[in-house]
Parts: sequence; structure tokens; C-alpha cells
Amino acid sequence: MHSIQQYQEFISAYLESKSSIKEPKNLYEPIQYILQLGGKRMRPILTLMSAEVFNVDYKKALPAALAVEVFHNFSLVHDDIMDDAPLRRGNTTVHEKWDINTGILSGDAMLILAYQYFEQYEPPIFSELAKLFSKTALEVCEGQQWDVDFETRIDVTIPEYLKMIECKTAVLVAAAMKMGAIIAETSPDNADLIYDFGLNLGLAFQLQDDYLDAFGDPKAFGKQVGGDIIENKKTYLYLKAIEFASAEEKEQLLHLFSLQLVENVDKIIAVKQIFDTTGASEATQIAIQNFTSIAFETLFKMNISEDKKAMLTNFGENLMKRKV
Amino acid sequence: MHSIQQYQEFISAYLESKSSIKEPKNLYEPIQYILQLGGKRMRPILTLMSAEVFNVDYKKALPAALAVEVFHNFSLVHDDIMDDAPLRRGNTTVHEKWDINTGILSGDAMLILAYQYFEQYEPPIFSELAKLFSKTALEVCEGQQWDVDFETRIDVTIPEYLKMIECKTAVLVAAAMKMGAIIAETSPDNADLIYDFGLNLGLAFQLQDDYLDAFGDPKAFGKQVGGDIIENKKTYLYLKAIEFASAEEKEQLLHLFSLQLVENVDKIIAVKQIFDTTGASEATQIAIQNFTSIAFETLFKMNISEDKKAMLTNFGENLMKRKV
Repeated sequence: MHSIQQYQEFISAYLESKSSIKEPKNLYEPIQYILQLGGKRMRPILTLMSAEVFNVDYKKALPAALAVEVFHNFSLVHDDIMDDAPLRRGNTTVHEKWDINTGILSGDAMLILAYQYFEQYEPPIFSELAKLFSKTALEVCEGQQWDVDFETRIDVTIPEYLKMIECKTAVLVAAAMKMGAIIAETSPDNADLIYDFGLNLGLAFQLQDDYLDAFGDPKAFGKQVGGDIIENKKTYLYLKAIEFASAEEKEQLLHLFSLQLVENVDKIIAVKQIFDTTGASEATQIAIQNFTSIAFETLFKMNISEDKKAMLTNFGENLMKRKV
Repeated sequence: MHSIQQYQEFISAYLESKSSIKEPKNLYEPIQYILQLGGKRMRPILTLMSAEVFNVDYKKALPAALAVEVFHNFSLVHDDIMDDAPLRRGNTTVHEKWDINTGILSGDAMLILAYQYFEQYEPPIFSELAKLFSKTALEVCEGQQWDVDFETRIDVTIPEYLKMIECKTAVLVAAAMKMGAIIAETSPDNADLIYDFGLNLGLAFQLQDDYLDAFGDPKAFGKQVGGDIIENKKTYLYLKAIEFASAEEKEQLLHLFSLQLVENVDKIIAVKQIFDTTGASEATQIAIQNFTSIAFETLFKMNISEDKKAMLTNFGENLMKRKV
């Protein structure tokens, strides 16, 4: 097994070796641009790690890992158009640097390129990877649509919210890990268990994203703290606060979430206080712990060595300790 | 073998049997909408026809035919956003009926759904179909990018233009036919020959589209005659006219293609006259005949019965006789 940093370097080196700007430049340059902006590379790391957990060399999993990363970046390029986002990882988004049409078309090409990376596997493995990938990619689209739909709905429930983040975020984490299992040709049981491990870890990860967006350390946190509050996003924190709030608190929170302000400092303080006093903050922390525990429980049933289990547990614990 | 109309009915019935609006509705309704607008269904018909040319029941080719049709409609939805087109097949485009974000996301989902239709084949066939499909889909994106690039270039050559329409239109016609061959498990030679047949027929088809846009019968033609002239599109007719024009004609044509008018009747008449007097109209007709002949020549080498060859020739001839 290797360290996270080593996996990151393997992915960067592989990406570098595969990147050459083909013609037409206006199609392929934006793809290279977004892929080189970096990011944590969490999803492809998980594919490599999973392959090694099931006893094959990470090198064999590199094409699938890159497919996952290219797909993830495809979804970022298209989501950034939909959200009208000017920045991604501190840099100009593709549709801002070029234009919306370039963002649409380069994104489309990335989705197809992702499928092509699987072609480096033999037909039975190719077929299994491509099917899992299609199912996952469609769920990500559905998750994005739910997210858009929720913006204009006032009756979003907690189960609906969890289903949305499961589709939008967790299924790709789960699939990334299952791909490692497929490439390693481990048992179907192990493959399903690592999928469940990834799914629950992905849910915990996204809930922690929600939590850190409000309560993260402004110095350590990469983006503006309170961004979700400024945008009146119905996160887990918000939905739990609405559930637990007294009539007075609920009225106050609904009022705060109807505001679109230029100066948001007071609003953020007020909302965070309601998140705390209603118990929503604590409930979110508990939910993060619960999903992490469910993830770890899948490991008991998995037919792998104890040191591999310890490694996956350690990875999950570190992910949940993150402040960024 | 069956008639074109019968194939059309098989596709409509199969599409109908597969269509149910899933959740989230805002993702799947636009997909059903665009697929139900109809169109000639030329590409999926070619997949069914090709399967029967190579002696398997068209029914076996229905999933691949639908994949081709869904992909074609994906490209229309995204292209219509890029072209800011209000109408498609006489109806409101997806991004006009809903919004741009819905068009982007529903289009993405259609691209993935297209891959999923191939899952109904066994891994070796699935694998071959998905690889051909990815290659083709990427070429279509490249063709679309060249088309966009050409709008702002004044030095587009005839070979570049032919490469663009090959990518944007012909490769999908070619791939649609090759899919029938793959499903029929015919020889690789036959599969490559039917691809070349489709490629050249596709080129002839697109050049004829260019020709009919200017010289089609306004009553028979589905859209506004002269649309390409109004939009100053550098079609084969235009590029040939520039090549053949006298200094005076060239100056006149460049001037006419710098205009953006509200009332275009006089411009269309003047441009069409230059297309005729320079010999560009005739050169386009000859090019259409040439590509059609090259398509027919591939049939000589193909290992199929004479009546199948006659049927494909007949299909090609009818396609080239069309006035719409």
C-alpha cells in the first residue's frame, strides 16, 4: 500500500503522461486546463487504494482512476455553468475563461473521454466498468437535477436531501472504490461491500462539507466560510434546524433565508447561532459519525486482511478529522 | 428486408415501449419531449437495415439503433443551445421550452442513456459497440468545434470543410451502419466496408443538405430556403464559389457575406446567382455524385448477396434524389 500523497503523485504523473493538446485546440485546451487545476484527487485515489486493498498493483487501476477524475471534472465544468460560478479551485472557471459554448462542448468531450479510458481493459472488465460508470453518471445527473429542484422548493425533507447528496456525491465515491475491486477481480461480495463503504463514507464526507461550510476554520478552509448561508442553501444543517426549531426560531431562520444581502457578516452569525441553539450542529455531527460508522461496519464482513481493514479505517478517520 | 417506412414504425414502437418518465421529472421530461418530436430517424433506420443486410433480424439491432437516435438527439439539444436556436423540427427547442441548464443536464443524461442501451448485448459485442460509439461521439464533438471555429475564420479550405462535415455528420451515419454489422457478427472486412459506405453516403447527404438549403423547393423544404446564406455560413457552395470566382465576383460575394440584414430576399437571389455563374452549384452536384459513387463502389467488395447490394444502392439513390 502507499500513502495518500504517493497516490496523488501517481495520478499526477499518469495524467501528465496522457495529456497532449489535440486538435481542435478550442475543444481540448479547456479540458487540459480544468484537469491541471488539481484538487484533492480524492476519487481517483480511492480507485487506486481499492485496487491495492484487493491485491493488485495500483498501476493496473490508473486508467479507471483517470476516468473517474475526468468524469468528476466534466461534472464540475457543467455544474459551474449551471451555477454561474466564476471560480473553481481559486481559478477562473472554464465557461468564464472561454465561454458557455466551450464549457458545454468540452464537458461533453470529457464525459466521452472518461468512457474511453476503460478501453484499456479486456472486454469483460471493460464491460463491467462501463456499466457501473453509466449507472453512476446517470445518478450524478439526477442528483444535480434534485439539487436544482430543491432551490425553489420549500418542502424538502431530510430523506430527500440525503437521497440528493447520495446521487450527487456519494455514488461516485462508491463507484470509484468498486472499480478498484472490479479491476482486481475480487469476489462480487467484496465489490459490493467496498461500494457500500464508499457510499457511506461519501455521505459522511458531504455532510461534513455542509458542516465545514458554516463552521470551518476561515484560515484553513479554501473557500468563503458561510457560502451556503449566503446563498440560502437548504443543507442538512438548515433542514435539521427547521425540524428542531421553536416557532420563533423557525420564523427567524425563514426570514434570514429569504434575504439576499451584499454584506452577510451579521446574517452568518445569526444563522450559525440558530444552527447551534436548535441542536442542528450537533445532529449534523452525529449524522457524520453515524455514516462513518456504517462505512466501517462494512469492513467487518469484507474478506481482506486485518491490516487492509485498519488502513481503510485510518483513511476514513483522517477524512472525517479534516478541517478543510 | 423491410421498407423505410416499416423501419420507421419499428423504431417508433420500440421508443414508445421504452419511454416512461422517471424521476426527477425535470431531467427526464425534456428527453421524452425531444425524442418524440420525430425527425426522419435516418440513423437508427440504417442500423436496422445494416443488421438485416448481414442476415440478422432487425429486432436484435433495436437497442443499438435507439442508442444512435438518442445520441443524435443529445447532440441536437446541446447544439441548439450553442446556436441559440429557437426551433427544432418546427417545435420549441428544449432550452427555450425549459431553460439552458435543463438543456445541458438533460443532454448529458441522454449521452449516458445512449451508452446504457448497448448493455443489452453480451460483453464482447457491448464492448465493440461502446468503443465505436465513444470514438464516433468524440469525433462529433470535434466536428461541432470545427464548425464553431470556422464561423470566425476567413481561410477555411475545402479539405477542412469536408473534414468538418465528416466529423459532424458522416461518422455517425457510418457508425450507425457498422453497429448493424457488429451485432450481426459479420466479417471485420464487411463491417469496415459498410462503415465506408455510410461515411461517403453521409458526406453526400450533408453536401446535398448544403445544396438544398440554397436551391431546394421552398414548398417541399422543411425550413426557410437560404438559411445558410442569411447566416453567412461557409458551406461547400460558398467555398467553391470563392475558389472559382473572378476578382469582381469574389469581392461581391465577400461583401454579401458581410451583411446581416433584416430583409434577405435580394441577398439570397444575388448569392444564388454567384453560386450558379461561378460553377459552384455544378461543382457541388458533382461532389454529391462522387461521394455517392464512392459509397456504391464499397458494395462491390462486400460479401453479401446481389439483392442486398441492389437494396443499399436503391436506398442511396433515393436519399440523393430527395428534394427535402
